[in-house]
Amino acid sequence: MSRERLIIVGGDAAGMSAASQARRRRGADELEIVVLERGRYTSYSACGIPYWIAGDVEQRDDLIVRSPEKFREQDIDVRIGHRVTELDVDAGRVLAHSDGGSGLLDFDQLVIATGAEPVRPDIPGLDATGVYGVQSLTDGVEVQRALESRPERAVVVGAGYIGLELAEALVRRGLSVTVVEAADQPMSTVDAEIGAQIAVALRGIGVDLRLGVAVKGIEAAGRVVGVATDDGEIPADIVLLGLGVRPNSSLAVDAGIECGPTHGIRTDARMRSTSHQNVWSAGDCVETHHLVSHRAVHIALGTHANKQGRVAGINLGGGYATFAGVIGTAVTRVCDLEIARTGLASREADDAGLEYVAVSADSTTRAGYFPGAQPITTRLIAERGTGRLLGGQIVGREGAAKRIDVLATAIWNAMTVRALVDVDLSYAPPFSPVWDPVLIAARKTADALSDG
Amino acid sequence: MSRERLIIVGGDAAGMSAASQARRRRGADELEIVVLERGRYTSYSACGIPYWIAGDVEQRDDLIVRSPEKFREQDIDVRIGHRVTELDVDAGRVLAHSDGGSGLLDFDQLVIATGAEPVRPDIPGLDATGVYGVQSLTDGVEVQRALESRPERAVVVGAGYIGLELAEALVRRGLSVTVVEAADQPMSTVDAEIGAQIAVALRGIGVDLRLGVAVKGIEAAGRVVGVATDDGEIPADIVLLGLGVRPNSSLAVDAGIECGPTHGIRTDARMRSTSHQNVWSAGDCVETHHLVSHRAVHIALGTHANKQGRVAGINLGGGYATFAGVIGTAVTRVCDLEIARTGLASREADDAGLEYVAVSADSTTRAGYFPGAQPITTRLIAERGTGRLLGGQIVGREGAAKRIDVLATAIWNAMTVRALVDVDLSYAPPFSPVWDPVLIAARKTADALSDG
Repeated sequence: MSRERLIIVGGDAAGMSAASQARRRRGADELEIVVLERGRYTSYSACGIPYWIAGDVEQRDDLIVRSPEKFREQDIDVRIGHRVTELDVDAGRVLAHSDGGSGLLDFDQLVIATGAEPVRPDIPGLDATGVYGVQSLTDGVEVQRALESRPERAVVVGAGYIGLELAEALVRRGLSVTVVEAADQPMSTVDAEIGAQIAVALRGIGVDLRLGVAVKGIEAAGRVVGVATDDGEIPADIVLLGLGVRPNSSLAVDAGIECGPTHGIRTDARMRSTSHQNVWSAGDCVETHHLVSHRAVHIALGTHANKQGRVAGINLGGGYATFAGVIGTAVTRVCDLEIARTGLASREADDAGLEYVAVSADSTTRAGYFPGAQPITTRLIAERGTGRLLGGQIVGREGAAKRIDVLATAIWNAMTVRALVDVDLSYAPPFSPVWDPVLIAARKTADALSDG
Repeated sequence: MSRERLIIVGGDAAGMSAASQARRRRGADELEIVVLERGRYTSYSACGIPYWIAGDVEQRDDLIVRSPEKFREQDIDVRIGHRVTELDVDAGRVLAHSDGGSGLLDFDQLVIATGAEPVRPDIPGLDATGVYGVQSLTDGVEVQRALESRPERAVVVGAGYIGLELAEALVRRGLSVTVVEAADQPMSTVDAEIGAQIAVALRGIGVDLRLGVAVKGIEAAGRVVGVATDDGEIPADIVLLGLGVRPNSSLAVDAGIECGPTHGIRTDARMRSTSHQNVWSAGDCVETHHLVSHRAVHIALGTHANKQGRVAGINLGGGYATFAGVIGTAVTRVCDLEIARTGLASREADDAGLEYVAVSADSTTRAGYFPGAQPITTRLIAERGTGRLLGGQIVGREGAAKRIDVLATAIWNAMTVRALVDVDLSYAPPFSPVWDPVLIAARKTADALSDG
């Protein structure tokens, strides 16, 4: 049997997980693995970048899980600084460029793991010096460099997860920070009343949070001097884009590889392209399906990227694995406020045409009398009629957010809120009130369903 | 319709939950509710007593969720200092004694919520001054009083949850503490390798932990002077019994009410006695069933007591509710070590005749590079063949233990470890590595099943 060549475009979580799993199952005598990465880093934690900027994480290299050298020891031929500009799937060939020149590389199997790119609004001035997206580690390095020149005023465009994590990081670095958000609440993935708690916390650490304000352009004179909005100009020495990301799928689109309505690459459950048998894809560039709304979604998260890359690699290695889909679980920490969500928020349930009750319950993270007990609000969304748990949101202080995983596991198993009340969750005073906050919320929601 | 009388024997979590729920559904004009409590307190957190002794909880009254006066405002006639010595179910009558005398009280419906009592080994000297069980708040008050005379040396008999929590509390109060345990590991509800970690932590705070040592008697000269063991005598100024508890069901047994093999009162899912239609029971005095082993079990826990009392009260109030059973979830904190378990431990799986693989995975509570990341060991037990998750154990530092609830929810839903790998759990660097420790363990266990 002649040696096959697997080319992987993109050397972050998804691509490198695929590479490692394929290598574990097939030796170098059988399968050559070449990874083409346009940046300088492999397998790093993009989610950790805001914490590096904040100073929680000391060094850039702390974010790097595994270096190119380490992968090379496994006979994975990682080529950094290699930018792929064209895929010819029928011919089994990619065109790549590096400092050493350009060239065509043949493949038998291809993994596209090109990740996501920051959403860049269609406004003037985005290319000015001092405007940054924070998607890759290279972006993070640039922001750190920009902070060395001690800018005083920052504007963050967008109040999603990344935007808020960056806003807090910049406050902690001593900048005066304004966050501009077009919606009327921060973090539109949670319901308004949870968003309101987040707004209070942000303003509490001094962030100037402008809600319902649209950005019209970046004012620049060589470099950034301000952000023009429909509510006036906001002076700025540095501007960060926190508008979320979209699949970086243009290479695939150009090659005729099928993408879905979210512009993510479409794959089957084994992460194989729906249009090309010898193409696989994983990570932030793919589209996946939501197990509650049953819709195609694009959710860029390191945890999915790792899982999907692993699935692709196992299949490429001759094994069998599938990616089951997602339910939109996410967690973050902003200003000591822990925020988490899973399943459908009210807005998403509305969009899916579902009727539901949404109930919030306030409690404490530990027994009320126990030192360190912190407030926690648990909000549940349950379908009318069936009583099925559709979604959950948690906001609170230390020890609150990870409880979202119980709700995620419950949704994953299509539990009703009434059934959730019965689950034998752990209790001891340092960990929980005698009724865990999750159970209190389930009880209250079950009652609301009976009344409704 | 003439007014009915509900008598509840025992005014802690189970009894008072039943009273409150029954009252919510039926007014005082329809249902008279009389609670007979032999002690002086209602609705307190027995689980909090070790933390009160340790000094984490400042005041006794912090442990009291709701006073008799508060219940009386709800037309619940709480009579403290009332000891019931006889039940005549056929006649619908109880015999109660108080400082005010003795008397018979008629009932239409009866709830037995007499709780548990500490296991007292059959050894000489147990009645000596200075020997305490720590089951009720009254016991806790006595221990606090004993500590005021500044004893120097304590012996704790038994290294279960309560024993270890008390041992730590006494170390923090400045005593020299010896723990004597007949088994060869502390906390026999977890597997040996988890027990070994607990032993290291206990010895690390200076506890003299004697494993595999049997207590033969208490040496006393009026008051305690030492504990005789098969490994010699251990001097002691105070002795605490931490041998666990058993159902306090003798009143029910004497009245001919059916009890099960655990000596707990048998009830149906609505918490009604299996032998008497007008008798209900809830809390630490009942027997329940284990949803994994399908055996009758007695597990004394405030969380079950609350749920069962609520169920009994809803049914007594004319509603419909059931208690679903338990899976043995428990959590505690000893010496900054968080310990949790759910489902079956290896020993219990053996007893149930199940074949399984047991796999431990070491990880961190947060992303490895994130400040505050702590070690966590997750141990899973999965059935051969089906791959069904049978049990889980967690030991680690801050942020580790509450992850047990994900495993509990997975077991509750009869998930396989392979299915668990897919669950969309939350991830962000301050909360978890990109593969949550629970998922890492599930993956490793699934691999072991494939190999086995």
